[in-house]
Amino acid sequence: MNAISSLDSIFQYIDDHAEQTVSDLQEFCRQPSISTTRTGIKEMADLVHCRIGRTGMNSALHETAGHPIVTGELGGSASKTLLFYNHYDVQPAEPLKEWSSPPFEARVVDGHVIARGATDNKGNIISRIAAFEAFLAVRGELPCSVKYLIEGEEEIGSPSLEAFIIENQDFLSAEGCIWEDNTVREHVPVLALGNKGLCYLELRCRTANVDFHSSNAQMYENAAWRIAWALASMKDQEENVLVEGFYDGIQPLTGKEEELLDKIPSYDGQTRREKFELRQFALNLPDEALARRHLVHPSFNIAGFDAGYTGEGVKTIVSGRARAKIDCRLVVGQTPEKIHDCIRKHLDRNGFDDIETELLFGSLPAKSDPDSDVVKACAESSRLLYGEDPVINPFGCGSTPTWMVIKHLNVPLSSTGVGCITSRTHSANENLKIDHLIMGAKYMAAICEAFGKL
Amino acid sequence: MNAISSLDSIFQYIDDHAEQTVSDLQEFCRQPSISTTRTGIKEMADLVHCRIGRTGMNSALHETAGHPIVTGELGGSASKTLLFYNHYDVQPAEPLKEWSSPPFEARVVDGHVIARGATDNKGNIISRIAAFEAFLAVRGELPCSVKYLIEGEEEIGSPSLEAFIIENQDFLSAEGCIWEDNTVREHVPVLALGNKGLCYLELRCRTANVDFHSSNAQMYENAAWRIAWALASMKDQEENVLVEGFYDGIQPLTGKEEELLDKIPSYDGQTRREKFELRQFALNLPDEALARRHLVHPSFNIAGFDAGYTGEGVKTIVSGRARAKIDCRLVVGQTPEKIHDCIRKHLDRNGFDDIETELLFGSLPAKSDPDSDVVKACAESSRLLYGEDPVINPFGCGSTPTWMVIKHLNVPLSSTGVGCITSRTHSANENLKIDHLIMGAKYMAAICEAFGKL
Repeated sequence: MNAISSLDSIFQYIDDHAEQTVSDLQEFCRQPSISTTRTGIKEMADLVHCRIGRTGMNSALHETAGHPIVTGELGGSASKTLLFYNHYDVQPAEPLKEWSSPPFEARVVDGHVIARGATDNKGNIISRIAAFEAFLAVRGELPCSVKYLIEGEEEIGSPSLEAFIIENQDFLSAEGCIWEDNTVREHVPVLALGNKGLCYLELRCRTANVDFHSSNAQMYENAAWRIAWALASMKDQEENVLVEGFYDGIQPLTGKEEELLDKIPSYDGQTRREKFELRQFALNLPDEALARRHLVHPSFNIAGFDAGYTGEGVKTIVSGRARAKIDCRLVVGQTPEKIHDCIRKHLDRNGFDDIETELLFGSLPAKSDPDSDVVKACAESSRLLYGEDPVINPFGCGSTPTWMVIKHLNVPLSSTGVGCITSRTHSANENLKIDHLIMGAKYMAAICEAFGKL
Repeated sequence: MNAISSLDSIFQYIDDHAEQTVSDLQEFCRQPSISTTRTGIKEMADLVHCRIGRTGMNSALHETAGHPIVTGELGGSASKTLLFYNHYDVQPAEPLKEWSSPPFEARVVDGHVIARGATDNKGNIISRIAAFEAFLAVRGELPCSVKYLIEGEEEIGSPSLEAFIIENQDFLSAEGCIWEDNTVREHVPVLALGNKGLCYLELRCRTANVDFHSSNAQMYENAAWRIAWALASMKDQEENVLVEGFYDGIQPLTGKEEELLDKIPSYDGQTRREKFELRQFALNLPDEALARRHLVHPSFNIAGFDAGYTGEGVKTIVSGRARAKIDCRLVVGQTPEKIHDCIRKHLDRNGFDDIETELLFGSLPAKSDPDSDVVKACAESSRLLYGEDPVINPFGCGSTPTWMVIKHLNVPLSSTGVGCITSRTHSANENLKIDHLIMGAKYMAAICEAFGKL
């Protein structure tokens, strides 16, 4: 019996129950669960807890300093354990007027479920549950042991997750982890084996307790100039970060990483240039250089700058206060604390000791072993279901907390899931294509099967 | 009969009618006349027109493309003509909640009239009228011919004034001009003999039609960085403007200007440092260097900068749009068009041709002859009434349109008036000290007398 024939009945079950799977997703999406406003968090945690329990898993709801974490576990025919990570919280739905149907109505339109959370991240939870239930219904057991960790604070930076993982290291131990989500691009799943870190700083300057009439500009320091000069001292127009120590400790790429990078298809620069009306990409990068730049490099970004008069027309003032928000996406070897420290020292050394810095958010970068069993299981399942190797991104681009699992549990992982490039996560009209939901359930089933047999 | 004895009865009349003068000011202040919202403009123009007529002057109300201009004229015992310039419009009163009494109630509190416009500029109009009426009542005639020009758009940049002056050059011809306003500092009047120009630009950059998630910052151009780099390329931290041509054509100071500058008292740096909680003045200037820096130098100021996320906390975006407002106070030899042109060329030469510039407002700098009769009359009158020479600032610091009178009428001028450093013009609780109003009327009377005799 080969892998394909052994899964036929599982895939058939998933197809036969597609309607129920969509209905499950709608039930999840109709319960708002906005972490930043705490809207519906308790209700959603209860709903997830009950739904996981109904699959037959041992389900538990854990109170934390923040929002509850739901866990589940169930043994399988193989003793190897696969850990799944998802989150039940969502982004706010605003601006509401931009939605074509109400964000928590989960209407099905043209083969898509339209809802806040449809892809990020409730569709992914439902695809996993559908896979588990297919095995349990058809075979009476899972092909490997499964543990499930579903938190409610991902959209606000997962402030309670690290402590929970540290406290529950034994319970969460596993041989591999399927992380949150990813996209299917041109009918091939994309995997990401880690994440970038984030160092989010606020720079504040106050030169006076008032804004002066600008006829006094010759005499008074202007906080906007102070911040503009400080910023320009930190990165040049060729995108070189000039902050001493910024690049220190960055690990060189391994041969395997180079090999994976070479296989990543070029980004479609022309489509992006047209859609977003770009003058050019940064550094006037050609299309074939975009993916590598995007995936491998750290960034040093101005996320916001405000000073003085920002309305329409003319107002003549010397800004007594100015503020910039800097966000650096970090690669392995960098940490938010080290980067904050470099920037602080740079400012002090260059006469900007009047500019205050505050680390508003930090998270660590992480990479995972590209030769791990979980990656192999994802690759084998891609060939089985999609007929091709997956695209493997050795470095995730976002700043989700994969590093917590890698650092504290030492579990290799792969991010994969049901989203696609038009899912509009975090935006109005977030949606999930029902075909991707069902295919995603089959892909999860295949991964469990393959992982159990490796 | 010397000048002093000849004015005793005039001064006595002004003192005897002080109550009526305050009441006249209250009547003016109770009529709102906010040019930017057109609130009460017509009513105020009518009121000024009637009030000027009631003095016995030939008064006229002239429609313009904008708000009406009121003029008056009356011959005097001397054939020399003194032109007066004022404006009847005021700034908005917002924020209303910061006023201790309603801004258009003109309540008298502790010897001050509290009202929007009390000093800027209605108190000045009333002080002139009180002087004229004293002469007419006591002597039956003015000591020199007087022309009066009162516009209603000063607070919005005087868009209709230049055309009016050009069209009415003959009517407005005079041998001297008393301009708008100035302050009395430590019981000595301050004169200003010109004004700075203004070049107010908006710099706009659009790198994309959206803000990107900052996990893409490595790939996309950030409009905030573009503007920050452009700004830093235009002025260094030692306040040197690096834009080629910016300083071109600036006239060196004359011996007389140097002499006047040397007589200007040092600014009280310590009081300002404490009151405004300054780290330091620009360039860490010592107190004794402040006045010269303030009066002589052009400026290159950031009046506003906004890009990306400017709220509280964390939002991770690449700014697709950014905007800065630049205002340069110009000295004689610079013009807004030339400065805009230099900046445009600088941007183009330095790779910032993607940054759009727009001249939102421009006005010319001007200087007036420090040896003119009107300045002599002001100085003589200061010695008579205040017992001391006035402080003569050869360069005004604001950007009022004195240049229009100097350029099109070729009339020397002096700005002087009833304000003081605590008048709070443009702010909540604008006020005028009644003593300054009455003393200002006497000072105007003395100036007319002295000017007629020179």
